[in-house]
Amino acid sequence: MSYVHRNVVQFTKMLGNLDAWLEKAKAFAEKKNIDPGVLLQSRLAPDMLPLMFQLQSACDGAKFYATRLSGKEPPKHPDTETTLDQIRARIRAVIEYCSGFKEADFVGADERKIPLSFLPGKGVVGKDFSAEMNVPNTYFHFVTAYAILRHNGVELGKQDYLGALNLIDV
Amino acid sequence: MSYVHRNVVQFTKMLGNLDAWLEKAKAFAEKKNIDPGVLLQSRLAPDMLPLMFQLQSACDGAKFYATRLSGKEPPKHPDTETTLDQIRARIRAVIEYCSGFKEADFVGADERKIPLSFLPGKGVVGKDFSAEMNVPNTYFHFVTAYAILRHNGVELGKQDYLGALNLIDV
Repeated sequence: MSYVHRNVVQFTKMLGNLDAWLEKAKAFAEKKNIDPGVLLQSRLAPDMLPLMFQLQSACDGAKFYATRLSGKEPPKHPDTETTLDQIRARIRAVIEYCSGFKEADFVGADERKIPLSFLPGKGVVGKDFSAEMNVPNTYFHFVTAYAILRHNGVELGKQDYLGALNLIDV
Repeated sequence: MSYVHRNVVQFTKMLGNLDAWLEKAKAFAEKKNIDPGVLLQSRLAPDMLPLMFQLQSACDGAKFYATRLSGKEPPKHPDTETTLDQIRARIRAVIEYCSGFKEADFVGADERKIPLSFLPGKGVVGKDFSAEMNVPNTYFHFVTAYAILRHNGVELGKQDYLGALNLIDV
């Protein structure tokens, strides 16, 4: 499996981990009698974006990693979610979408020229899009989501963050 | 450049970004007349680890990515730093160390068997060590460090996080 395809698989796994964090957040909110919307609007600083945005951005990070590096047209997700159930449905939709990619989709991905919508006329090549842009940015949103949940008291640990590892005997 | 070597270059860049965040944190502390040690001991939750630990772990993430995947013996850093100057000196030492790796160091990295010290007798192969363990974990510590600084009021943005991008005309 190419590194690019391997990263698509990894982001798909991270979205599954993220959905499991939200299951714990739901149980936490029920136990504390808190509206889950309070968590979704929580932020780490007044000028940082809230959990809902971090979740939407993690979904987009994974989706755009796969589509930009394969040249496919991404499905639209217009950021209209307001509830935990709605954003979890989107996470599961992106998991399903990203699970459909195959090795052959990423032939030539490293050298693909990827335009940047926020810098008209400028872009990055696929290998730089991957290593210095999308991967750090997508993990930014996964980790910030995790941090907001932890900051609010949801009990998560490194195993929830990483998920199961593919172990071998050594 | 192989993807593994490319990630070493990327982590080295992220350590430079991290050092620049700490320069801004230093200026912030001076302006507010705060001991920088208060920031270094700040955490996002009582049962999360403080900024100093996140910084040490980001250094280790980058260092161990390079050494585990090349089979080299890592230099020792015994986590004895207590001041901003000391941890910044370590960041710079790891930047220098990681900058010395070459493409040839990572031949066979994907299939290298890497033992896990916390799971005796178990390990992971290099490609899984990279994608599902070290990369998510190292970004975890970079982003948590960033989040602690932002939560405390240090003015940082996405450009500080990502650093300069290798742009092309499209």
